[in-house]
Amino acid sequence: MEEGIINETVQKHGGNIYRASQRYGIRKEDFLDYSANINPLGIPEELRELIISNMDLLSSYPDPECNDLRKDISLYLDVPRDRIIIGNGAAEVIFLLFDELKPKKVLIPSPTFCEYERAASKSGSEVVFYRIKESKGFKLDVHELISSMNDNDADSLILCNPNNPTSVLTSPDDLLNLLKAAYRKGIKVIIDETFVELTIGGNLNSMTAYLREFDNLFIIRAFTKLFAIPGLRLGYGLGNKALISNLWKRKVTWSVNCFAGISGLILRNKHGYLDRTTSWLSKEIDHFYNDLCNLKKVHVFKPNTNFILLKIKDKKTNSYKLRESMAFKGVLIRDASNFRFLDDSFIRVAIKDRDSNEKFIEILNEVI
Amino acid sequence: MEEGIINETVQKHGGNIYRASQRYGIRKEDFLDYSANINPLGIPEELRELIISNMDLLSSYPDPECNDLRKDISLYLDVPRDRIIIGNGAAEVIFLLFDELKPKKVLIPSPTFCEYERAASKSGSEVVFYRIKESKGFKLDVHELISSMNDNDADSLILCNPNNPTSVLTSPDDLLNLLKAAYRKGIKVIIDETFVELTIGGNLNSMTAYLREFDNLFIIRAFTKLFAIPGLRLGYGLGNKALISNLWKRKVTWSVNCFAGISGLILRNKHGYLDRTTSWLSKEIDHFYNDLCNLKKVHVFKPNTNFILLKIKDKKTNSYKLRESMAFKGVLIRDASNFRFLDDSFIRVAIKDRDSNEKFIEILNEVI
Repeated sequence: MEEGIINETVQKHGGNIYRASQRYGIRKEDFLDYSANINPLGIPEELRELIISNMDLLSSYPDPECNDLRKDISLYLDVPRDRIIIGNGAAEVIFLLFDELKPKKVLIPSPTFCEYERAASKSGSEVVFYRIKESKGFKLDVHELISSMNDNDADSLILCNPNNPTSVLTSPDDLLNLLKAAYRKGIKVIIDETFVELTIGGNLNSMTAYLREFDNLFIIRAFTKLFAIPGLRLGYGLGNKALISNLWKRKVTWSVNCFAGISGLILRNKHGYLDRTTSWLSKEIDHFYNDLCNLKKVHVFKPNTNFILLKIKDKKTNSYKLRESMAFKGVLIRDASNFRFLDDSFIRVAIKDRDSNEKFIEILNEVI
Repeated sequence: MEEGIINETVQKHGGNIYRASQRYGIRKEDFLDYSANINPLGIPEELRELIISNMDLLSSYPDPECNDLRKDISLYLDVPRDRIIIGNGAAEVIFLLFDELKPKKVLIPSPTFCEYERAASKSGSEVVFYRIKESKGFKLDVHELISSMNDNDADSLILCNPNNPTSVLTSPDDLLNLLKAAYRKGIKVIIDETFVELTIGGNLNSMTAYLREFDNLFIIRAFTKLFAIPGLRLGYGLGNKALISNLWKRKVTWSVNCFAGISGLILRNKHGYLDRTTSWLSKEIDHFYNDLCNLKKVHVFKPNTNFILLKIKDKKTNSYKLRESMAFKGVLIRDASNFRFLDDSFIRVAIKDRDSNEKFIEILNEVI
């Protein structure tokens, strides 16, 4: 059972450093992990301290209503508390949402994060895809998407913004047009903003401000990428009050552990970690992109967030082979071939600090 | 929304010290919490150290397959790894199980833990109850239960052993008879052993040894009560390989956080914390019971694990009033009125260390 214990999507997901360690015989801590796309600034110091000084919380049940967290998120995003559901990572929120909505037909602009399709199928929904065009650099054409939405007679639409794995951001103006068109037709729009704080502009690119006006809007967010804490398990969702209330009733009790429950405190200090994140991002995103553009054997898609989609031009290799040879050199990359509409010429890599990025380019250059 | 954000069962669940703190204006840390039934030895020191020295795990996704944990549990209970599913508390395991099995009709010997009924109903099962008799001190009559199982034409049965809230243990011999009878009829038997390590005899009272022989047996376990860590969220299930494999596929990915993922290490040192637990239990369980028996205004049901069911004899008060007046004195108890077949004369209290227990009795004496 050691192979195939869980679904294949998860096995290919970036960041399964446990499996990689077994497979390539390299210690977990020795990998340069470019497969997971989390904030390279690492775990906020405040959070480490918070956990150590609140160790006794382990001996109580977590607050099942996550009141402290909802308060902090409410202040952080200016969204009322009764529009917030907290979950065990964005994953729980997505699955809860589909279980609750049970959409008849879901439209998914793709390539995108694979779990939407899995969650939709699990809830019995028919899934249809709108293909985001590689020829346009994977930029989302909202007018085309609106036509596709109408033609397909979908009752729900889910997209990721900025999108994973393409790293392309769609502007709030474009999304507003989409939202209005969907609203008129009674179509639900779910936007996964897991990476939005890792764009230049951060929450200015978020659609949270439209939650009051559009009750067909649901937003998925998480602490995972922003605070580099996928191990903690903390995601949340924002939507209309009735839906949020139903999600709370549907949810597995206490799925949010005690440390996740207090981690909202790190949102209060906006000028520490979050500012440093913006500063890093504005320096490295273009720099790494430009450096990668100098490589002849890959095409680089322009990123808007902390990871980059690459296309291997060399026909003699592919994403799988490249992943293998990089891994044996101690660098993990994301084989992006299992994203719908991509093939085995695509890989996704994280953006990290200057030194690591340079080392990454050096190794990629050697290997490819 | 602050009232009723989640289901009523959860609100009445013991251990919601957050709500209690708001309600009674007493700081969380100042309560004597007799409402949650966890090991009063508190968080194992090894676990605190483990978390502090593994803080960096936060920045990686948890191992979605929980390999380390399954290895440790496998050694601890002598159950093969491919018979183990790990979940976010026993709660996730229970909900996953019912979602997967989707039983037509579930028989639940009651009073018992309320979440079984909730999980069964959520999966669309019809739920029928076998009433455990108060007149027999809430001892389970397995012959009667077998008849009830046959009469009701149930396809599944779930029970808690030792039972919550009655604290009554059914012997492995009796359960074996039940299991055999169920096996012949193709009925699934689910046994929640969340408290089994907190009985005199510990794992000797477990049915794990019968997993190989009976593929209709599923066992639910958790670290929650034994290691006093409800905040960590860690439960597991043991069953036949095919079922376990399906549960892994169904489960929300990464629901087990990084610290829970390494906590199996504390199982390796059997002669530290676990021995001290047995020693505490064998001293306090009878002592507290006998002390409570001296009180005239309550009837005390003989406990087999770390909590006690009490019946208030005084008609002028009830479980709700008593909970209120105890809480204002800084002591939380579990109003047991919402357990099926119990009424507002029942409360449940934890067993703790000698000093706390004596203080508890003193305050109960004052209040009642």
